[in-house]
Amino acid sequence: MSEVHVLLVAGTHGNEINAPWLFDQWTKQPDIISNYGLKISKAIGNPKALKDCKRYLDSDLNRSFRSELLNDNGRVDCEICRARELLSSYGSKGTNPCQIAIDFHSTTSSMGSSLVVYGRRPADLAIVALLQAKLGLPVYLHEGDKTQQGFLVESWPCGVVIEIGPVPQGVLLASIIQQTRLVLETCLYELSRVGKGLVSFPSSLIVHRHLRSIDFPRSKDRQIEAFIHPLRQGKDWVPIQSGSPLFMKLDSNIVKFEGDEELVPVFINEAAYIEKNIAMSFTKRETWKFLSEWEYELRNLFYEPH
Amino acid sequence: MSEVHVLLVAGTHGNEINAPWLFDQWTKQPDIISNYGLKISKAIGNPKALKDCKRYLDSDLNRSFRSELLNDNGRVDCEICRARELLSSYGSKGTNPCQIAIDFHSTTSSMGSSLVVYGRRPADLAIVALLQAKLGLPVYLHEGDKTQQGFLVESWPCGVVIEIGPVPQGVLLASIIQQTRLVLETCLYELSRVGKGLVSFPSSLIVHRHLRSIDFPRSKDRQIEAFIHPLRQGKDWVPIQSGSPLFMKLDSNIVKFEGDEELVPVFINEAAYIEKNIAMSFTKRETWKFLSEWEYELRNLFYEPH
Repeated sequence: MSEVHVLLVAGTHGNEINAPWLFDQWTKQPDIISNYGLKISKAIGNPKALKDCKRYLDSDLNRSFRSELLNDNGRVDCEICRARELLSSYGSKGTNPCQIAIDFHSTTSSMGSSLVVYGRRPADLAIVALLQAKLGLPVYLHEGDKTQQGFLVESWPCGVVIEIGPVPQGVLLASIIQQTRLVLETCLYELSRVGKGLVSFPSSLIVHRHLRSIDFPRSKDRQIEAFIHPLRQGKDWVPIQSGSPLFMKLDSNIVKFEGDEELVPVFINEAAYIEKNIAMSFTKRETWKFLSEWEYELRNLFYEPH
Repeated sequence: MSEVHVLLVAGTHGNEINAPWLFDQWTKQPDIISNYGLKISKAIGNPKALKDCKRYLDSDLNRSFRSELLNDNGRVDCEICRARELLSSYGSKGTNPCQIAIDFHSTTSSMGSSLVVYGRRPADLAIVALLQAKLGLPVYLHEGDKTQQGFLVESWPCGVVIEIGPVPQGVLLASIIQQTRLVLETCLYELSRVGKGLVSFPSSLIVHRHLRSIDFPRSKDRQIEAFIHPLRQGKDWVPIQSGSPLFMKLDSNIVKFEGDEELVPVFINEAAYIEKNIAMSFTKRETWKFLSEWEYELRNLFYEPH
């Protein structure tokens, strides 16, 4: 078989410091995490932002992988340049081409250990199905959102985001480090077994399909006028029914969720999303039959010549 | 009596957004919080940093109130200029002089609702004794720390910091808003009763006296090489004895606390203190007899001509 090459990325957002710290320790003590014989490269997504402990310097790196930005020579933002660099190193036509990208993030939301895929690429779905079967992790399928585009992993043939929280920005937390390490090792283990033809895929996958995001209630002067209701704070992945409390004002007035169907909120109160006018996103929980095409496409990455 | 004037400050650090949000709502709906007849002024400490949701732009505003900085005409940092502005508006010689400053902060540490005083000014100790008697709040006495100087409240005749956590930077949280509101209202209520001569002071005050701060264990290249031990994370105000775990490395090696006496850690894992090389601070818990001098000095602020 031709050897697959896996790109592991941490610190795509410079104030999400747990995965970069884990990568740094791993570099210093290579035995601490097994790569299970896989060919891997590790990269810090946004090293300048990490140094300053900021999400980004000029623009969000994880929204910068859009062809119109990458191909616009007039754009010389720190993050657009960094996106080009990462692609010229590890992209399909790069000096060190990788076929699979795994991008490690953290969040202030109570997402636990979770997986995010963008669109319905078969090989991505095969990987998250494997990880869900092994660790029970919930999957957020982000698609059809015109305002949020240009995610890093979309620029690789196959790619998945690992999203772990809650943790404040800029805080190193034992639990988050251990969770990140567990998902990382499991991911490498499962991929190595795909390469060896040893893995068996589950028969189904539970996805949380993105429907829409909602903003905080705002006054005429665009100021936030209600906070996440205490009964909803920290309740990512917990279904919400019509009439359930969503936001609360200082005078105790409640803004309720209104809808025809039960939905599942994710990324509730993520600090970095306030500037994107997102208080939370709504998804629909669906159980999908595992398709042989997903397995086929993932296996192809291991067997096709690169 | 001459009327005391109380300065309430929020957003001294621009990424601590809960108190500024509360102030904004209060300004829009003045009836939502009673001022109990006190003459008060509200100020956003660092409005430019708040707009960018950053702790500060050039330097930490809450370390900028040092005479050598304020009097150095060559220093035109955003925060030094802002410190001068606040003093020229609300300082003793300002256009709108205030005698008491209450500065509202939040932290990623699990400090709960707590009070911080700098040094042993009698009137400060009288206020925190009142609040401790009413709400049971722990008091951190910060003193004798040559590396951390120039706190805002020190530039007023009397001043106290309210510190509430845990909350990530840049996140609006119901519980933190409610805690901030409770301490704010209690503080105004108690001060109004001092002015009316109705208050009775407690007979003692429990303080946590600052001894020293410690950094994370670091490698030769100055990188952090251990995180807060999971059994210590979130355990601010919980006494620590010699031999108790303090930090943990990725290989599970433990760094233990060694000391002759039981100490009380505070500000464990505050995100903003990593850059100050502080992983936590150690204090000694002491019970002090309430001195009549404290009451006298606080009452004087209400009765002396301003």
